Amino acid sequence: MSLEDFTVSESLLLTIAILGGTGKEGKGLAYRWAKAGYQILIGSRSSEKAVTTASQIMELLEGSSSVVGTTNLEAAGQADIVVVTVPYSAHRDTLESVKDVLKGKLLVDVTVPLIPPKVSKVQMPAAGSAAQEAKEIVGEDVEVVAAFQNVSHEHLLGEENVECDVLVTGTSKKARAEVLKLVEATGLTGWDAGPIENSVVVEGLTSVLININKQYGSTHAGIKITDVPKRSPD
Amino acid sequence: MSLEDFTVSESLLLTIAILGGTGKEGKGLAYRWAKAGYQILIGSRSSEKAVTTASQIMELLEGSSSVVGTTNLEAAGQADIVVVTVPYSAHRDTLESVKDVLKGKLLVDVTVPLIPPKVSKVQMPAAGSAAQEAKEIVGEDVEVVAAFQNVSHEHLLGEENVECDVLVTGTSKKARAEVLKLVEATGLTGWDAGPIENSVVVEGLTSVLININKQYGSTHAGIKITDVPKRSPD
Repeated sequence: MSLEDFTVSESLLLTIAILGGTGKEGKGLAYRWAKAGYQILIGSRSSEKAVTTASQIMELLEGSSSVVGTTNLEAAGQADIVVVTVPYSAHRDTLESVKDVLKGKLLVDVTVPLIPPKVSKVQMPAAGSAAQEAKEIVGEDVEVVAAFQNVSHEHLLGEENVECDVLVTGTSKKARAEVLKLVEATGLTGWDAGPIENSVVVEGLTSVLININKQYGSTHAGIKITDVPKRSPD
Repeated sequence: MSLEDFTVSESLLLTIAILGGTGKEGKGLAYRWAKAGYQILIGSRSSEKAVTTASQIMELLEGSSSVVGTTNLEAAGQADIVVVTVPYSAHRDTLESVKDVLKGKLLVDVTVPLIPPKVSKVQMPAAGSAAQEAKEIVGEDVEVVAAFQNVSHEHLLGEENVECDVLVTGTSKKARAEVLKLVEATGLTGWDAGPIENSVVVEGLTSVLININKQYGSTHAGIKITDVPKRSPD
């Protein structure tokens, strides 16, 4: 099945909740996925804020898509795929507040465990990474995949070509393959980067990129995988 | 000072020891650095093997450079910069065996803590990374920098253009700057990737790249940093 088939047929059946979707990361992803045909639920602690953000995105899209704002819990409950884009300080609370409605769903964690003020230094939680911590919180019946941590999300809110690949780690190859479809739908290039234990690399890479921005005066350093002739996984 | 100035004048004064230099990683680096004008000491547990490797590299270089084989201890004792390119299983023993002659020197750690058979899964030592473990072993008077973990070293043994950037982490900005000069001397592009705590990302990236090679049928996946207009650090 090609991406085109996917976005036209299968994706219409899928609803994606974006928890913390009023932040710039969530907005950018919501915009790209809504455009590709997914049903989007913007979640927030305040449903009012979520409704405002949903309207803003609908305006950008000129109305042809479905973006609805509600609470994090409502959004997670109604969605097939639940994406977390909250600051690390709200990561645990957000997951605890929705974990009862996640059973059997796919959780996509975009969180980077940055601990201010040393955001250019890798500082992982005891679980090993934010994604592994998420897995501990949500339990056995939820597949957890980490992705999109290295992308400058404001670039997603538009037609711009984003010069950054997406490394996808997660609890199973099948779950990673699902998220690779979501990456393609945003127009970016995704890579199966292995098991959930590899999330430390991808989350930590954000601190490395922040460090490079600081040292070299750039603002949106990214990464590209090189020297891989074939693009589809075996 | 430009790279040209560096390789012509300053580098002639510098001697680099490559511990475990009979392996393919060490040979590739030795070849490129010898070519750039550095004095190279190939170290090995067996000085006989080191002498053989040194001759092989001298042959490739057609004799115009200085590459000498000896024991790890001798090499480390005589060098200004000491590079470790041993398999992770020999990492601690090698460092313990030379630590008394490292005081005041710069240690460059190329080691990736791969633990067979799961080499595509990130598995870091208790210290956080091989480089941090090296720092614990060699103590306060030695600067430790991690670099070159993601490069396919057999590519270095020739004139080939290597499509992989080098992320450089380490105990001080000054030490990282020194190693960035060594990266330039190999013809690769290096980046200051921050403090030694960030080594987990760069070492772990090797497992991610191994995973990508496995999934996508490639053999030499690498990374490039994108969207950084300016190349020299502030």
